[in-house]
Amino acid sequence: MSKTTVSHSSLISASASEVRAAIRSGSYDGHTAGLAAGHLQCNLAILPEAFALDFLRFCQRNPKPCPVVGVGDTGNPALPTLGRDIDISTDVSKYRIFRNGTLNDEVTDITEVWSDDLVTVALGCSFTFENALLRAGIPVRHIETGCNVPMFRTSIDLEPAGPFSGHMVVTMRPIPEAQVEETRAICARYPQAHGAPIAFGDPADIGISDLAQPDWGEAVDIYPGEMPVYWACGVTPQNVLLDAGLPICITHSPGHMLIADVAEDAETPILKRDIPIQQGD
Amino acid sequence: MSKTTVSHSSLISASASEVRAAIRSGSYDGHTAGLAAGHLQCNLAILPEAFALDFLRFCQRNPKPCPVVGVGDTGNPALPTLGRDIDISTDVSKYRIFRNGTLNDEVTDITEVWSDDLVTVALGCSFTFENALLRAGIPVRHIETGCNVPMFRTSIDLEPAGPFSGHMVVTMRPIPEAQVEETRAICARYPQAHGAPIAFGDPADIGISDLAQPDWGEAVDIYPGEMPVYWACGVTPQNVLLDAGLPICITHSPGHMLIADVAEDAETPILKRDIPIQQGD
Repeated sequence: MSKTTVSHSSLISASASEVRAAIRSGSYDGHTAGLAAGHLQCNLAILPEAFALDFLRFCQRNPKPCPVVGVGDTGNPALPTLGRDIDISTDVSKYRIFRNGTLNDEVTDITEVWSDDLVTVALGCSFTFENALLRAGIPVRHIETGCNVPMFRTSIDLEPAGPFSGHMVVTMRPIPEAQVEETRAICARYPQAHGAPIAFGDPADIGISDLAQPDWGEAVDIYPGEMPVYWACGVTPQNVLLDAGLPICITHSPGHMLIADVAEDAETPILKRDIPIQQGD
Repeated sequence: MSKTTVSHSSLISASASEVRAAIRSGSYDGHTAGLAAGHLQCNLAILPEAFALDFLRFCQRNPKPCPVVGVGDTGNPALPTLGRDIDISTDVSKYRIFRNGTLNDEVTDITEVWSDDLVTVALGCSFTFENALLRAGIPVRHIETGCNVPMFRTSIDLEPAGPFSGHMVVTMRPIPEAQVEETRAICARYPQAHGAPIAFGDPADIGISDLAQPDWGEAVDIYPGEMPVYWACGVTPQNVLLDAGLPICITHSPGHMLIADVAEDAETPILKRDIPIQQGD
């Protein structure tokens, strides 16, 4: 079981399955931004079955921050609609284990804590629409400057379900005013990746006091002629899960996503079976 | 409690809430096609909580036939993300009650059978994309001829979840060959209403033996220069629920849908709270 370390750059044009294999074998434990280009990357929430129905209701009621793209069977680490050979207990490069709402451990595999009682929920992430914006020539500041996207708590109430409630977390990207409408139209095509922005303009309107002081990530400059644009963020469900104080809950570590076999621009996040029919989409 | 009967035509330009009030009071018990124009109409599945997690997993894995647009709290007949005053036990004009997989009753209100154990799942329906096709000048044959859309069992396997599995049911609409691509593009904008067609052309490719003999609904003519186009159909989850033989399961009667306050072209099926912020969508 040799564990040759592979570099981030060597995995950029790899297939999703190759990246997962490198992670599974322990050869790669870095972040996944830009890897297996063109494939859907996913936020991860693994929780006990007793909370799964309420969590799925919560996600359905808050589809902008919580776009569900895959749900596993109880106790089964496979996610066949997202990838042919996914084992969620080994195929993410870094996991965070929370117990009773507190960070308990950060690990590179969860086979030791996996149990027959756990349900995996995979959620779309912002990489998908950022890639689409870049392809359209729309600048994405935190990628230009190589820093983490700034994230902010807001005053926007979430629709509650069972023990899950709270306020939306958003990301902010400065967009040239002339390109805000195009940005909106592009992102609206990706409902499984937070969709269109939820607001733009004055941060006070959504309860943000200072754009220079993000709650997570790093502040970015806003140039003259640019408008701050806000998207629902995948940190929202993570916070909500922590606040609910579940006995156990496992997430990916920030930036260390699950990479699916599904194309990031597919109409649905469901891997097509190999059926020899003439298909309309 | 006078029950003045109101006509279908008098409700076409009514609000969703007015139509629901007419149904709730017993003044209207007809079909809902064309009512409260512009509002989302929904298929309905009400089932015991013990089956709800698996049913939501089934819907997530089969989003084309089973696009979830609302899920109620267990035992609560309200659906606040779909409408401000919805009471699902009274607000649908005709319900079907199934016990152990067999049709047991057809009623105009289910207050007598509602229980603390039931979960409501609302699913998008084809009215949404049919309205969009008509607005674009694309003919919809069964509407032109005033009959019910033809529906067919196919050989397309569904992704199973718990006790739920089977084959996809599709609707067929003949579309002029020159408009098939426009049809696909328009419908793809409505992922919550079955989205883009799942196939077109030879019915044998998806296991349909004779387009003149639909399994439900009525056959329609296919004119020269037209191609049969197939969409995932909301009868799929109904069949799957029946096959699972649940002790109790309640659906709407065909054509008698729940009418939501949400606009049928909204980005998400979640009713906006009245918050005074500048919104991007």
